[in-house]
Amino acid sequence: MADLPNLELYAYWRSSAGFRVRVAMALKGLTAHEHLIDLETQENRTPEFLAINPAGALPVLIEDGQPPLTQSLAILEYLDELVPSPPLLPADPRGRARVRSLSLALAADTHPLITPRIRRYLMANAGFDAELWRDWQVNWFTAGLQAMERRLASDPETGTFCHGDSLTMADIVLASIPAVAKVFKIGVEGTPTVDRIVARCSELPAFANADPSKQAGAPAP
Amino acid sequence: MADLPNLELYAYWRSSAGFRVRVAMALKGLTAHEHLIDLETQENRTPEFLAINPAGALPVLIEDGQPPLTQSLAILEYLDELVPSPPLLPADPRGRARVRSLSLALAADTHPLITPRIRRYLMANAGFDAELWRDWQVNWFTAGLQAMERRLASDPETGTFCHGDSLTMADIVLASIPAVAKVFKIGVEGTPTVDRIVARCSELPAFANADPSKQAGAPAP
Repeated sequence: MADLPNLELYAYWRSSAGFRVRVAMALKGLTAHEHLIDLETQENRTPEFLAINPAGALPVLIEDGQPPLTQSLAILEYLDELVPSPPLLPADPRGRARVRSLSLALAADTHPLITPRIRRYLMANAGFDAELWRDWQVNWFTAGLQAMERRLASDPETGTFCHGDSLTMADIVLASIPAVAKVFKIGVEGTPTVDRIVARCSELPAFANADPSKQAGAPAP
Repeated sequence: MADLPNLELYAYWRSSAGFRVRVAMALKGLTAHEHLIDLETQENRTPEFLAINPAGALPVLIEDGQPPLTQSLAILEYLDELVPSPPLLPADPRGRARVRSLSLALAADTHPLITPRIRRYLMANAGFDAELWRDWQVNWFTAGLQAMERRLASDPETGTFCHGDSLTMADIVLASIPAVAKVFKIGVEGTPTVDRIVARCSELPAFANADPSKQAGAPAP
């Protein structure tokens, strides 16, 4: 293996996207020096952080002082190119398309809806209180995971993991959603295939160690 | 070039994600038989459509009767592997990471917020009326494009297009956002770099022909 790069990760303890990067790094045998950026106090909007990522978004991975890498799925693809083994994508183009699609269904169509900036907007501009926000969270966690269940349960390409019996990027993204739902004490019913795959993932140290509860900044249990 | 596959595209006339697939197919010299699925009447929730895509999401691309391809960025990556020229991604890993990140910043962090299912939820459950919905649309179109402006304007890797002087996936996703904002008569100020790149893209037939106003189902001008 080539010399490992120096990696700096900026993330928030309970961020779903940060979880994905932590898992992928662990699977690839990479470690990063991690910086906690508190989304609740909008530390991501300070001049110091905007100098690192002008878009103000997390996570950010910086390799050997080079320009910041942002957006969790782009970071996962990059890590997969940097350290090809174990692969996070199947070898065939249609398999890659399926894994990328499963990943995007949650990383794009579900997770961005339930982030702190959305809560702040709805509370400041649309009269949301804690109960309306919780209804919103439950609705989109449920919609996202149940849509995933329909896809996975009906597809013969689903195996031990989302795509056959090998771990891929889709499993990392899938596990990242209940990992954060759990922080909010939100459970989704009627998703046995999802639950089975997430339970299988959580047996692996790369996933267990990335759990929000184990990160710096998490509240004491 | 290999024989072109038979492609069937299911999309909605003003969908930003459908726009991306249309542009990518045109750039690759591919054509599809297109089916209009009306998101406003929830034609994507009918048993007929759910048999095609159990997740009920658009766009869907079907190649030669094989399983459906979904999620616009996964479809673009697949088309880029199927027909490598002209490439939609740079040749170097860090360039690919940058282009994927720019693409995801809009396809994941912006576009999913302003889709019909979000409007339906907010109107049915959170007392939104047309004015509150418009404020929401304007807020997230603006936040997304201004964040993109900050990234593009401050980065020496930005050129005629988002990444240097060659068209990539990032330009397709970037152009897909104002293409839909225009349908809602929403303009975003203070984004000169974005505006310049989108104007450059719109000179290309692949982009001009994918405009929502030119699709089946669009209202008469």
